[in-house]
Amino acid sequence: MSQASTMLRTMVDTGNGSLRSLRESNRERLLGLLQENGVLHRAELARRAGVSRTTVSTIVADLLDEGIVVEVGDDTDRYAAVDDVERKGSRPRTGLSLNPKAGAVIGLDFSADAVVGVVADLGHEVLAEESHDLGAELPWENRLDVGVDLAKTLLARADMPWSRVVGVGLGVPGPVDQRTGEVGASSRSLPWAGAHAASDLSRRLNVPVSMDNTAHLGALAEIAWGVAQGCRNVIYVKISSGLSAGLVVDGRVFGGAIGATGALGHMPVDLDGPVCPCGSRGCLELYAAVPALVAQLQGMSRDLTIGHILSMVDDGHRAARRVLADAAGTLGRVLAGVCNLLNPELVVIGGDLAAAGEHYLAPLESTLLDHALPIVADQLRVVPGQLGDRAGALGAVACVLREATPLRSTSTT
Amino acid sequence: MSQASTMLRTMVDTGNGSLRSLRESNRERLLGLLQENGVLHRAELARRAGVSRTTVSTIVADLLDEGIVVEVGDDTDRYAAVDDVERKGSRPRTGLSLNPKAGAVIGLDFSADAVVGVVADLGHEVLAEESHDLGAELPWENRLDVGVDLAKTLLARADMPWSRVVGVGLGVPGPVDQRTGEVGASSRSLPWAGAHAASDLSRRLNVPVSMDNTAHLGALAEIAWGVAQGCRNVIYVKISSGLSAGLVVDGRVFGGAIGATGALGHMPVDLDGPVCPCGSRGCLELYAAVPALVAQLQGMSRDLTIGHILSMVDDGHRAARRVLADAAGTLGRVLAGVCNLLNPELVVIGGDLAAAGEHYLAPLESTLLDHALPIVADQLRVVPGQLGDRAGALGAVACVLREATPLRSTSTT
Repeated sequence: MSQASTMLRTMVDTGNGSLRSLRESNRERLLGLLQENGVLHRAELARRAGVSRTTVSTIVADLLDEGIVVEVGDDTDRYAAVDDVERKGSRPRTGLSLNPKAGAVIGLDFSADAVVGVVADLGHEVLAEESHDLGAELPWENRLDVGVDLAKTLLARADMPWSRVVGVGLGVPGPVDQRTGEVGASSRSLPWAGAHAASDLSRRLNVPVSMDNTAHLGALAEIAWGVAQGCRNVIYVKISSGLSAGLVVDGRVFGGAIGATGALGHMPVDLDGPVCPCGSRGCLELYAAVPALVAQLQGMSRDLTIGHILSMVDDGHRAARRVLADAAGTLGRVLAGVCNLLNPELVVIGGDLAAAGEHYLAPLESTLLDHALPIVADQLRVVPGQLGDRAGALGAVACVLREATPLRSTSTT
Repeated sequence: MSQASTMLRTMVDTGNGSLRSLRESNRERLLGLLQENGVLHRAELARRAGVSRTTVSTIVADLLDEGIVVEVGDDTDRYAAVDDVERKGSRPRTGLSLNPKAGAVIGLDFSADAVVGVVADLGHEVLAEESHDLGAELPWENRLDVGVDLAKTLLARADMPWSRVVGVGLGVPGPVDQRTGEVGASSRSLPWAGAHAASDLSRRLNVPVSMDNTAHLGALAEIAWGVAQGCRNVIYVKISSGLSAGLVVDGRVFGGAIGATGALGHMPVDLDGPVCPCGSRGCLELYAAVPALVAQLQGMSRDLTIGHILSMVDDGHRAARRVLADAAGTLGRVLAGVCNLLNPELVVIGGDLAAAGEHYLAPLESTLLDHALPIVADQLRVVPGQLGDRAGALGAVACVLREATPLRSTSTT
């Protein structure tokens, strides 16, 4: 929530200590203008901030010394209209921008069986990334241990000191109650059920932590940097050990009353179906999430993973193809109903089956479009996600940076 | 879309003719300030508009003459802080506000078998209302005839001339493609399928027409004036010959990519169920909309209507109770899934079953809350709508008035 302001505060605090003097407030104002506008000249900064050029020069000199701001080459066309008067003079003009290297953001995305970590700078450049498998039964505290170690490793690899970390974005596999910071789960036996993951992590790392459901973050990443750039109404589906969705509504990830949107896996497929750990019956997850696919083929091969199944499909294994196509069809039927309700322009298939190819995507798309109302289907596209396993961790980075408008806009347009 | 500006334009055009002079623009500005602020004094108008008091006095005199603005009693507390200086003087001060009687809005809400009409003034006061039954097979043109006649009758009854009508709000039973103004339908055989209802009506009446799906309008009315006032995330369910929803997302009715959200009746209940006119199978409408209830009891009584069924339920008719409870349970199961996806704070049950009472609402609510995820169910309420059959028509009025911020806010807060 307050990441952008935190980033600014961090930068401001490297200045004059804790007392907020006029100079600090001017410094913050100039940094804010650079955040909003990308590149500005000293004269523009003075005019827009309503302060003297001398004040701007003094503050900018400090910011340059501290490496928070950098000088960038002049783009005369860009400023032709703005600085006509100045350009008639002979002084060389140099643009100023925030130094993307002045801050780092860590993204950690926990799924049931893995954690993906990313370190990026303020310019959204990924500096280091890595993932670790996690035992499905591993308690939340131990998961956090792995995440913290991973963050430290990646930060060292990126050659970034902890002092430059402006925030951590955290993805969790359950719905998040944004009022309390508690992670929900479809079953109380899941390791993250009831965790206060963001505050736990923030206490350990002593930096602000933003938390959201992994599918919400995947949706955020795909609209910021992936296949859904420029789209306003999107359903991002993450298929893994569970099945969840990030709903993009009018360009923003929609959190609902308390942040707990997106439990697509707990929409009913068969009202009289098998009982679900969530306490309902016949939920979509029981038919279309990865464990359901694995269970159907378990008898045919040992220690199956979704990777094995996709290889079997590629090799022409007819039962594996049937399992994949039926799961796609069931998901397509439910998504047709969801699209009838939400009228999105784009459905993005992410998670473990994003890479499944045409044997999965073709039946999913054809079932969805064939069963949705024509008015809904006619302008709907179904595509695989572009960011793969990294979507959640990249979305966690975007979640921290998203109040930093110009940084986001450089990647969304 | 442009109703508020149309209203202003209408008012402005009663001034100096078509040439937009400075005075016209000042007139428009003062009207806008009164719209935004409700009641203002001449001095405040001058200050906020940045024009002289003389200019304000001249324009206001005209507006008073034309009956567009009225003088209202002074509320000294309210303006104590604003006009301290003036109050020390001895002149009496009189507030000015838009005259609610200066304009009328017509709301016409078409369902499959009826049209409800409402005439309201700009202050949201309902001046006249009436409904007419329509044959389910009646072609769209004939439906419009009935609607136009109804509008004329109501306007005469409200003692409002046509020249004061600032807009018509139109509700239709199908999803609306807001790009093209075409009404969709679950089946091409429905009378409104493919109609361009708003432009047809606008041509006949020569006033601007705003159109939306009837459930969208019902949702709008319930958040503006009904049971959902102050709520930000709401699912309004309209149960009638079909079953559709108005989704309130962050305080606004959500239209999705093209306006065609809310086809709740075409979410799947049984993937192998009976074929639906929409071309899918086992859609919710086939189990929980009014025709499904009637069909199950048809053998027991002739010419059944939902009214008869509700009477039978009240009289202890066990089969009628079973039919009602089962339909409620099925809707509850699907709504549990929808709430898992959308995490609303409130579900409002509108339409023909809003008045069904506990024999319907109790099993619906208990099924919904029992099958939704705890994190979703814990803060969710299920309530009947407050506006009954008028919800759509009142929403049609709200749809025309909603850009008029202060008018809306007087009723939403």
